[in-house]
Amino acid sequence: MSIRYLTAKLAQQIDEELMSSAGAYSLDQLMELAGLACAQALATVYNKDQYSRVLVCCGPGNQGGDGLVAARHLGMFGYKPTIYMPKPGSKDIYKRLQTQCDNMEIRTIPSSDPISVLHDALRSSDVILDAIFGFSFSGPVRAPFAEALSLISSSNLPIVSVDIPSGWDVERGNSGGEGLNPQVLVSLTAPKEGVRSFTGRHFLGGRFVPKTLEEKFKLNLPEYPGISGVVELPSTRG
Amino acid sequence: MSIRYLTAKLAQQIDEELMSSAGAYSLDQLMELAGLACAQALATVYNKDQYSRVLVCCGPGNQGGDGLVAARHLGMFGYKPTIYMPKPGSKDIYKRLQTQCDNMEIRTIPSSDPISVLHDALRSSDVILDAIFGFSFSGPVRAPFAEALSLISSSNLPIVSVDIPSGWDVERGNSGGEGLNPQVLVSLTAPKEGVRSFTGRHFLGGRFVPKTLEEKFKLNLPEYPGISGVVELPSTRG
Repeated sequence: MSIRYLTAKLAQQIDEELMSSAGAYSLDQLMELAGLACAQALATVYNKDQYSRVLVCCGPGNQGGDGLVAARHLGMFGYKPTIYMPKPGSKDIYKRLQTQCDNMEIRTIPSSDPISVLHDALRSSDVILDAIFGFSFSGPVRAPFAEALSLISSSNLPIVSVDIPSGWDVERGNSGGEGLNPQVLVSLTAPKEGVRSFTGRHFLGGRFVPKTLEEKFKLNLPEYPGISGVVELPSTRG
Repeated sequence: MSIRYLTAKLAQQIDEELMSSAGAYSLDQLMELAGLACAQALATVYNKDQYSRVLVCCGPGNQGGDGLVAARHLGMFGYKPTIYMPKPGSKDIYKRLQTQCDNMEIRTIPSSDPISVLHDALRSSDVILDAIFGFSFSGPVRAPFAEALSLISSSNLPIVSVDIPSGWDVERGNSGGEGLNPQVLVSLTAPKEGVRSFTGRHFLGGRFVPKTLEEKFKLNLPEYPGISGVVELPSTRG
């Protein structure tokens, strides 16, 4: 039985169930484990000696929160992250995660800065963590994100995308061609339909899905190794 | 500069600062990372093939919450945890963490059961995770904990204690002699004064202390290796 790829609707349903009174998780818990998994996957592929400068790009939704958590853990791991948020999230949790990064002396590029600042930030980065759009994204990409995605793409830096590469449709993938082309993908909970054709290194994170829920939704998740928060999925390259 | 050992008052102060508006952490976040670190430390010393049956003993305070988080992660790691709570905590987070364990099909011994049930549980366990009393404990040990500690001690099973072995004074250690004698200790944030004389394997967990706070309190924390949530401290045995 191979792993199940989720539609946008099913991903939403599982997320809601995890945080329902039956699932009993708080958003803080899930975000912490998801962001930690993203940081671990990035660190597995890009070592901190050669790729210390990570530009963590965060959207205004929950995925941006995962990005902020990842930025903090990357700082703890010894990387030098910088946070880029074209449009900061308004939820209270987003602000708290931001403060935690401030306390780690992680620089955040003010969203009021002109787009040229992103250009400069890209020139002084080694790798990008793309936490801009998640499984609730539906196109098209609008300002200020369109220009940001375009600049990120043209930087030719290696990209680690969270859940769904930004600009891809959650179910149809990069059919529009305006999405990023990451080297590494970190799917959270379970991969989404849109990434079936992804040929880079593909990790699964989010070791918080209880057996009961995995069986209910027939997720067929692979076994995580040891105490790791991520498991690498077989490449679909061949 | 060696690591700083904390008084009970200082431990309390740091905990409060982490969760203040300046520290910006939620209890959910800290408990998740603390409990994960405890599970990781246990798994580092006791492999799941020989020590699959973990009796997770949880007190009614925040340390009991760390224990519940650890139980869930141990279940995720492939261990077979059982939870023993002589007196369940009343906070909402405690109930949610309990439900998360239920969803992992982790058995909890009802607190209404007679103490003989603990006796039976000890006979069918390989290792104990002691999350009964934390840094806010001050003796003496009262019912129903006194009898539980006595039974746990006489089981001669290996014990992994969280932060401060249960029954030890946070500053004076096991001076009263009524505390547990763990093989492994997992100090959270920073070790407490009372464990200076501890001679077993000693891990530090809680990779969430920002540089600013570490410097403010002169904690002199050691460097955590790679992406690990725990770091082993040098033995004081010699």
